[in-house]
Amino acid sequence: MTHGVIHLENDYSEGAHPAILARLADENLRARSGYGADDACESAAARIRGAIGRDDADVHFLIGGTSANLIALAAFLRPHEAIVCTEQAHINVHETGAIEASGHKSLPFPTTDGKLTPSMIEQLYAKHVDEHMVKPRVAYISNATELGTVYTRGELYALKDCCAKLNLLLYMDGARLGAALAASDVDWSDLPRCLDAFYIGGTKNGALFGEAMVILNESLKPDFRYLIKQRGGMLAKGFLLGYQFDVLFEGGLYLDIARRANGIADGLRGVLAAKGARFLADTRTNMLFPILPDAWIAKLRERFAFHDAERVSSTESAVRLVTSWATPESVVTEFERCVNQLR
Amino acid sequence: MTHGVIHLENDYSEGAHPAILARLADENLRARSGYGADDACESAAARIRGAIGRDDADVHFLIGGTSANLIALAAFLRPHEAIVCTEQAHINVHETGAIEASGHKSLPFPTTDGKLTPSMIEQLYAKHVDEHMVKPRVAYISNATELGTVYTRGELYALKDCCAKLNLLLYMDGARLGAALAASDVDWSDLPRCLDAFYIGGTKNGALFGEAMVILNESLKPDFRYLIKQRGGMLAKGFLLGYQFDVLFEGGLYLDIARRANGIADGLRGVLAAKGARFLADTRTNMLFPILPDAWIAKLRERFAFHDAERVSSTESAVRLVTSWATPESVVTEFERCVNQLR
Amino acid sequence: MTHGVIHLENDYSEGAHPAILARLADENLRARSGYGADDACESAAARIRGAIGRDDADVHFLIGGTSANLIALAAFLRPHEAIVCTEQAHINVHETGAIEASGHKSLPFPTTDGKLTPSMIEQLYAKHVDEHMVKPRVAYISNATELGTVYTRGELYALKDCCAKLNLLLYMDGARLGAALAASDVDWSDLPRCLDAFYIGGTKNGALFGEAMVILNESLKPDFRYLIKQRGGMLAKGFLLGYQFDVLFEGGLYLDIARRANGIADGLRGVLAAKGARFLADTRTNMLFPILPDAWIAKLRERFAFHDAERVSSTESAVRLVTSWATPESVVTEFERCVNQLR
Amino acid sequence: MTHGVIHLENDYSEGAHPAILARLADENLRARSGYGADDACESAAARIRGAIGRDDADVHFLIGGTSANLIALAAFLRPHEAIVCTEQAHINVHETGAIEASGHKSLPFPTTDGKLTPSMIEQLYAKHVDEHMVKPRVAYISNATELGTVYTRGELYALKDCCAKLNLLLYMDGARLGAALAASDVDWSDLPRCLDAFYIGGTKNGALFGEAMVILNESLKPDFRYLIKQRGGMLAKGFLLGYQFDVLFEGGLYLDIARRANGIADGLRGVLAAKGARFLADTRTNMLFPILPDAWIAKLRERFAFHDAERVSSTESAVRLVTSWATPESVVTEFERCVNQLR
Repeated sequence: MTHGVIHLENDYSEGAHPAILARLADENLRARSGYGADDACESAAARIRGAIGRDDADVHFLIGGTSANLIALAAFLRPHEAIVCTEQAHINVHETGAIEASGHKSLPFPTTDGKLTPSMIEQLYAKHVDEHMVKPRVAYISNATELGTVYTRGELYALKDCCAKLNLLLYMDGARLGAALAASDVDWSDLPRCLDAFYIGGTKNGALFGEAMVILNESLKPDFRYLIKQRGGMLAKGFLLGYQFDVLFEGGLYLDIARRANGIADGLRGVLAAKGARFLADTRTNMLFPILPDAWIAKLRERFAFHDAERVSSTESAVRLVTSWATPESVVTEFERCVNQLR
Repeated sequence: MTHGVIHLENDYSEGAHPAILARLADENLRARSGYGADDACESAAARIRGAIGRDDADVHFLIGGTSANLIALAAFLRPHEAIVCTEQAHINVHETGAIEASGHKSLPFPTTDGKLTPSMIEQLYAKHVDEHMVKPRVAYISNATELGTVYTRGELYALKDCCAKLNLLLYMDGARLGAALAASDVDWSDLPRCLDAFYIGGTKNGALFGEAMVILNESLKPDFRYLIKQRGGMLAKGFLLGYQFDVLFEGGLYLDIARRANGIADGLRGVLAAKGARFLADTRTNMLFPILPDAWIAKLRERFAFHDAERVSSTESAVRLVTSWATPESVVTEFERCVNQLR
Repeated sequence: MTHGVIHLENDYSEGAHPAILARLADENLRARSGYGADDACESAAARIRGAIGRDDADVHFLIGGTSANLIALAAFLRPHEAIVCTEQAHINVHETGAIEASGHKSLPFPTTDGKLTPSMIEQLYAKHVDEHMVKPRVAYISNATELGTVYTRGELYALKDCCAKLNLLLYMDGARLGAALAASDVDWSDLPRCLDAFYIGGTKNGALFGEAMVILNESLKPDFRYLIKQRGGMLAKGFLLGYQFDVLFEGGLYLDIARRANGIADGLRGVLAAKGARFLADTRTNMLFPILPDAWIAKLRERFAFHDAERVSSTESAVRLVTSWATPESVVTEFERCVNQLR
Repeated sequence: MTHGVIHLENDYSEGAHPAILARLADENLRARSGYGADDACESAAARIRGAIGRDDADVHFLIGGTSANLIALAAFLRPHEAIVCTEQAHINVHETGAIEASGHKSLPFPTTDGKLTPSMIEQLYAKHVDEHMVKPRVAYISNATELGTVYTRGELYALKDCCAKLNLLLYMDGARLGAALAASDVDWSDLPRCLDAFYIGGTKNGALFGEAMVILNESLKPDFRYLIKQRGGMLAKGFLLGYQFDVLFEGGLYLDIARRANGIADGLRGVLAAKGARFLADTRTNMLFPILPDAWIAKLRERFAFHDAERVSSTESAVRLVTSWATPESVVTEFERCVNQLR
């Protein structure tokens, strides 16, 4: 680890966790039916149903996060129905208007930590009173959020109660669900109790690619596969997704990967905190947003690759450090060495 | 090869050509930028530009065929513009209305062989005369077609001339382009001369997944990546597509795979022809549609797995046999043995 | 009536029936709430409910036919659901892809008389078997059809039974519903028994503009006004529509207008039949499609204005003659005089 | 004027200005071609071209404001292109997501007076940097705004310069354009110099219904009528719109109506100002938003009908007073009498 920069740019910079790659190689010449109608997908779905404790859940394997969100919301909403979310929500900022291209308006609420609250939902709901305005129907949350923060169990149940009261659906974008579960008191079994639907992110947690959509609410289940196909999200070799999630949910690998990445991020956080750094948001997941002097940032970039987050003052910026299954264990020691040299 | 059925169901029943899998394994721990902005994609794009002899082509790597078609047509068309195609066109029948979900009407023309002709284009064009009707703007062809037939060089140039005359774009769905090129007098270099855009199918020609969109017409190039992202087609780990097409276009593997699959299909065709079978369409690619007595079909199914195509008479059906990079060489001998036993 | 041409071009060439214009003038300075939430709309809706004998029907007043169709189908369908119709259907040909722009595919069936049959519905339904294809959900009929033909009571009930069996909705475009009712054994009270929703055309039956959407099926009622507003179909001065339909459904004016127009068309038909003319379709409504020698057509055009329908042979064309509330009674006598001079 | 309430609810509570109604009656039995291809529309378009001093402008007559906005933006934008606007923008709040239903995202900026500034445009533009986000392409302004405020000539030209610099189109929603022109230093001839397209509102300025879309930018002109038809905005009896705008632009009636309504509003404003009332926004158009004690509001409602705007404190609310061509001249005197009685 003496040569080259160490990558802390994101959690999708490398291929797949070795156990996943091994499974793909092992299955490579085995013929299976197309489009996800195969035994590998069925096995993976069964494992996910087991993990969340709900035999009746519908599980669909999808290609990526934006695709998962646009398919779900196109499937769940009538044309005049809208989505309540935070200003930072991935669907609101970073999906090139995919939701609007499906015909739906998002109603963003400003936040500092990326977390939606019942109060925000209620305020947006109260402003949409008649047919001259869109009708809020889904509350969208990301967990972990786009800022790396997470929902507590109490917060999730409070959102559920709020949505139930207002007849809204609660949908969770779980692109980084592993990181969230590994960093909070929320358990797999809490998810079906609170959510109408959610997806379990594979791409950012060790898979080559792929997300698992889980639908709990009976009214949202019919014809979901039509929407997958129509929006270009049905993989011909759907078994590839089955293999990957089967590995991730066999023996707890999914959370193991997340815990390891969170753990390394904790190490980095400790180093920065010891150095007196502030953070843009208080995170316990695999994403950190330390606020650092520009000179320090430049110096750290000689050894580590990472993205800017935002300009904070004339001499400081927040940067984003992300860890993953592929981040070397040794990174904390090396990071500490480099940080300790900063003046 | 004495145990189990032999799969002739389709060309996407297995994983990836071994050379592709090896490359994925080799690159697995190498970190690269996301979303296709990496050197592997650039290398693969350069090889494709080289193959077609057009340095100025834009090349984008996409996830699947339906996704590729809907992204391209959403990018190329204004809302009132329509697509001229055959009745059998994949976009017209087998994409769950993906094109319509993007807002566009397809104008299908009945055919027996799945091939669009200048006369069909002209007839549809002539019927759409004013703003009460959609405006034809793209002619969509599949090559190979959904029936396994192919366009000759002369036919392609005739379509190009017709489209130029009527100010239509000519777009080719190349899900099985390898099979088509390997079975016709059309050359890579003919494609940019005739087409405004097309995609090169990877999924059905040895890749795990992936298609390469090639855009020649300058007016169609701007902001294409926005559409990829908006429609859920931008893979986070885009380099996975780069690896695969880099392998496919390094040293001619793409056509080698197609030639081999076509060759095996030729062998099967010869066996059937010798037995006196008729065919639904005259194909030289990796798809055969023999018309067989029901009893024969049942007998063959004891040894081979394949799909029904259509009912032809009270005692006969057409079935679909498909070969691929994964079809064992020995299949022809075994098929001949079985066919010769049919009475 | 000795000067100028006599207009037989269509049934929307003039303003409004005098009774409607008088009502608009009478109400002009009376202030009412906007967007259709006024007592004139309520009165008109009550009269329509009375006419069809269904107190529970939802009635919405809309601006025009294409707008009515696109709003209804956007409201009734999920994104993957499709519309079964005839090849000549207004939505399939003459609405510039409005349905597709709302995201839905139409599945047209070829006909000679513009009428949809249970057999056509069943054939289209049988071809759409899984999630790779759109899912037929609405059967769309026009009555009178685009060719001026009408459905009998028996045919309507047969369509209803077919749709019920296949879980399809039956929707009727009634742009020329007056003409149809006046020319068939179908009664106002048959409509709610057969149809899930339909609209009553005002534009082509004496109104300045406007159509009345009637929704019977409970599941189609919620939030319909959101769709009206979202698709630009909610008139600020909605009471204008209320006034018009209130007049049309007060004392039977709606059918009186249609009977009169049909009657004049009958007169023209008789003249032509006596002269030995054939017709493109057998119609009893206010549209005729006589097939005439080109020389006769040219001669008739010196006195009458009308549209071409289609070329029938090298020396003959079908033309379209349309009558309306504004067609002078004297037209039949004058037409007979002119036709009798043709050689 | 001693009986009944006086209506100050909005500017579309009655029918049409008497001159318009007279013209409709006069033309009622004259047959004209459908869909706006008639000499009345041509005459009205010519008058509008004359008013703005641009012979090359395309003019299209549309049915209503939401319809006009959604047609224009659907015609002008590619799928990934977005609209910069104020938080209060009609398209953002009061069109039930019509723009999103056409596939486009609006990017609202918070304001207190409803006016978009170059700085707002620049800030929104600067945040949308790559293909993961929508691409700002149109700046949408309403003039008068939703709060009754207006743009000065200087502000309009500054917006134009900003848009030109950033390659954005500048589009104006002129639902209340008459009120704006009558209340500002902006002249008809300024509009084509600043705007790529705009519509002239008829519905809220004396017409029964109708808006005139004016397109200046050559690149936005092609095929606009296809979009009108596709979105349900093409009136069969298009000549009705021609008659109305022909009257409005013959001898300056359009601005006369607006000046009269603004003048009455000025009278009401004076009465309130003399009483010491504050206003939500500083307006000189036909809409006032005085902030009044709840007791006063209740008292005024005995004599005048008007809408609430928003709650301002525990004892005060802002209400909305709107005048129109139909507001009686005597209203100011009566209003003064009532206001003077308030304690």
